Amino acid sequence: MTSSETAGRRGRRPGDSQTRTAILEAARVRFAHDGFRAATVRAIAADAGVDPALVMHYFGTKQGLFVAAMEFPLDPAQIVPRIVGPGIDGLGERLVRFLLGLVDELGEANPMLALVRSAVGHPDAARMMREFLGEAILDRVAAAVDADRPRLRADLCASQIVGILMARQVLALPELAAADREILIQVYGRTIQRYLTEPLESPAASR
Amino acid sequence: MTSSETAGRRGRRPGDSQTRTAILEAARVRFAHDGFRAATVRAIAADAGVDPALVMHYFGTKQGLFVAAMEFPLDPAQIVPRIVGPGIDGLGERLVRFLLGLVDELGEANPMLALVRSAVGHPDAARMMREFLGEAILDRVAAAVDADRPRLRADLCASQIVGILMARQVLALPELAAADREILIQVYGRTIQRYLTEPLESPAASR
Repeated sequence: MTSSETAGRRGRRPGDSQTRTAILEAARVRFAHDGFRAATVRAIAADAGVDPALVMHYFGTKQGLFVAAMEFPLDPAQIVPRIVGPGIDGLGERLVRFLLGLVDELGEANPMLALVRSAVGHPDAARMMREFLGEAILDRVAAAVDADRPRLRADLCASQIVGILMARQVLALPELAAADREILIQVYGRTIQRYLTEPLESPAASR
Repeated sequence: MTSSETAGRRGRRPGDSQTRTAILEAARVRFAHDGFRAATVRAIAADAGVDPALVMHYFGTKQGLFVAAMEFPLDPAQIVPRIVGPGIDGLGERLVRFLLGLVDELGEANPMLALVRSAVGHPDAARMMREFLGEAILDRVAAAVDADRPRLRADLCASQIVGILMARQVLALPELAAADREILIQVYGRTIQRYLTEPLESPAASR
């Protein structure tokens, strides 16, 4: 974003985009340094020299600010309820269908890869991602679970989803990268569904 | 480094460790540059100024050389047959039990994390890992599979295993990091077992 670009909505003044840029820059620094949870909108606003109400006006929530600062292509606050909303039935398949569609569409430009990259290299970035993923996605998925240990179940799902990203996009394992998307949706969808619903504690009984 | 240095386990001469170091250094450069598959023992030996027979004498195979060069704590050529050998029954559980034991034992010093780190950041490193993992682990697992598309099944397993590493070690998702190892062995073991055995193509029929 250059300072000559005026933000798209109607009636914004030329200074708006500079203000937004300053807020986003301050947010990136704060989130990286303090983590997602400890960073406050108040502190970010102060760093950017603006009123906290203006930050909320632009970005709605701290999550919205994070999404904009990290240049996510999508806001989990919008996507997750759409996938989780219809209920636990078929949730695994909906989740994997959405994810693989997104991954294939974004290709190399996938910003999730940049985030994985930085999380792998930097403990602070890993903490930031853990806290954001937890609040924006995993707690929301856990809330839809009707079984014991809902958040562990959401974490199990996350472990398979991150693994899909790594194995299909980063390592590009040959058969997995070439596999028909519909087969993967069914296979991984069943795994996610089981993580959300199957008994965890009595494995012997469930075989 | 001269080629007159001979190896011999007992009675190694002082020059031996310098020769080994030169070979390992040459191997790291070649593997990173050419990938695991295209790099030859002959070329690595030439780079190190030694006879190829000496490389084989020290390291046994190209895989063994790779394992030594990357400072793996274990050699897949030894471990994988031990896990796969008893057959497909219980393979998922054996694999996850071994992996989680290793991961917990190694902790922060886990060299797999360094490899993931470099694979995520560098396409050449990703290719090197893909080729080595394929030949040293995934093809061996696939060979034990008694179902259609054995290598796709091995790749599916790899995607969950890399995901465990990422979610439990790198992101350290809280419930997953704190979960009882035995529960994870059972839950993930079932997933791996299904990837190795369940029908892939007729998902509707298998539900």
